[in-house]
Amino acid sequence: EVTMREVAWGLRGPHDKGIGVDIEPISTFDLANEDFISRNFTDDEVAYCQSAPTDGERQARFAGRWAAKEAVVKALSSSAPDSQNLWKGSGAPLKNIEIAHSSSGAPIVKLRAHPAEVAKAVAVSEVIVTISHAGAYALAQAVAR
Amino acid sequence: EVTMREVAWGLRGPHDKGIGVDIEPISTFDLANEDFISRNFTDDEVAYCQSAPTDGERQARFAGRWAAKEAVVKALSSSAPDSQNLWKGSGAPLKNIEIAHSSSGAPIVKLRAHPAEVAKAVAVSEVIVTISHAGAYALAQAVAR
Amino acid sequence: EVTMREVAWGLRGPHDKGIGVDIEPISTFDLANEDFISRNFTDDEVAYCQSAPTDGERQARFAGRWAAKEAVVKALSSSAPDSQNLWKGSGAPLKNIEIAHSSSGAPIVKLRAHPAEVAKAVAVSEVIVTISHAGAYALAQAVAR
Repeated sequence: EVTMREVAWGLRGPHDKGIGVDIEPISTFDLANEDFISRNFTDDEVAYCQSAPTDGERQARFAGRWAAKEAVVKALSSSAPDSQNLWKGSGAPLKNIEIAHSSSGAPIVKLRAHPAEVAKAVAVSEVIVTISHAGAYALAQAVAR
Repeated sequence: EVTMREVAWGLRGPHDKGIGVDIEPISTFDLANEDFISRNFTDDEVAYCQSAPTDGERQARFAGRWAAKEAVVKALSSSAPDSQNLWKGSGAPLKNIEIAHSSSGAPIVKLRAHPAEVAKAVAVSEVIVTISHAGAYALAQAVAR
Repeated sequence: EVTMREVAWGLRGPHDKGIGVDIEPISTFDLANEDFISRNFTDDEVAYCQSAPTDGERQARFAGRWAAKEAVVKALSSSAPDSQNLWKGSGAPLKNIEIAHSSSGAPIVKLRAHPAEVAKAVAVSEVIVTISHAGAYALAQAVAR
């Protein structure tokens, strides 16, 4: 026999809380700005972006990952609209929001340090993200739940 | 002891019903068209948009809010695909879909009059929205639940 | 009296699993490429797109539908990040992901053949989509659940 608690456990799937979208002009990402890159992207992200065959494609990958990180920030803020600004004074580079790859090809989000604490504070257990780029723009969308 | 009803109440979180996305070219928003602005934006929205430091930024804010309103319209329509067109003949300016700010910085949606009636008709209790602009475009995404 | 099973049934609404976003430059869609069009769009989709009043609008409709199909592919992959790449070797044209219209005006998604099998494999029972185009770009967003 199942109990109330077990019914609750079985049904309480991840519940969408907040959303974020971000668009970036690809040309503004300067591959020569090593300081900007090393402060905001992990070694794995840099390796992935730099492995693209052309400068334009490398810029597009950095722009897409940057858009994804910004979308994650917005999705976390959107999850707790009544809270104070969760990022103020954090001065945090976006390195601690890592965009990795899953085996299906879909990007996945890894949160560390301050972003991980923010997620915990707003009761978000998972953030999913999707990225696209074409022409002059990269964009990404995130859902926090 | 908890009852079935209480379990149900506790678990029945907002359930996502529909989605909407909208992209707008920023340059098409004419700040001099006071009639368009006053018909479609609330006093608070106008004050927020006009407080930006440059004409370009003011246009971008109007475009972003307009995209958010359009995304809300689509998310409501997407929540009830089998209904008739919910907006036909409403001739409604978008002023009654207000994009306000929460303390976390995330935008929030306030529905009044016809849009509020549409939301009620399709059993939507909340609409969330996210906005971004860069380069020549503003875009927004909405989820109705 | 309601049973546990009935409570569960009543509460287990569609649960969002994955998301996808896609942006496309409208000008890259070549209306003269009949092979590309017939391989990727159904007769109903072609009829809808071709019924637009201008070449620019026809291109925009094809671009928007293409973006929607790509967003659906991504949303299905995002629904099962730990699976293998679900599309590899399928060489599948996107014709079997059809973007149709509902009576409310919102687009709806019909899956057939390989895409329908992928959805079943990742336990997705419904995919919803939203489309927008403006200026040089079309974009779409999908949620799989």
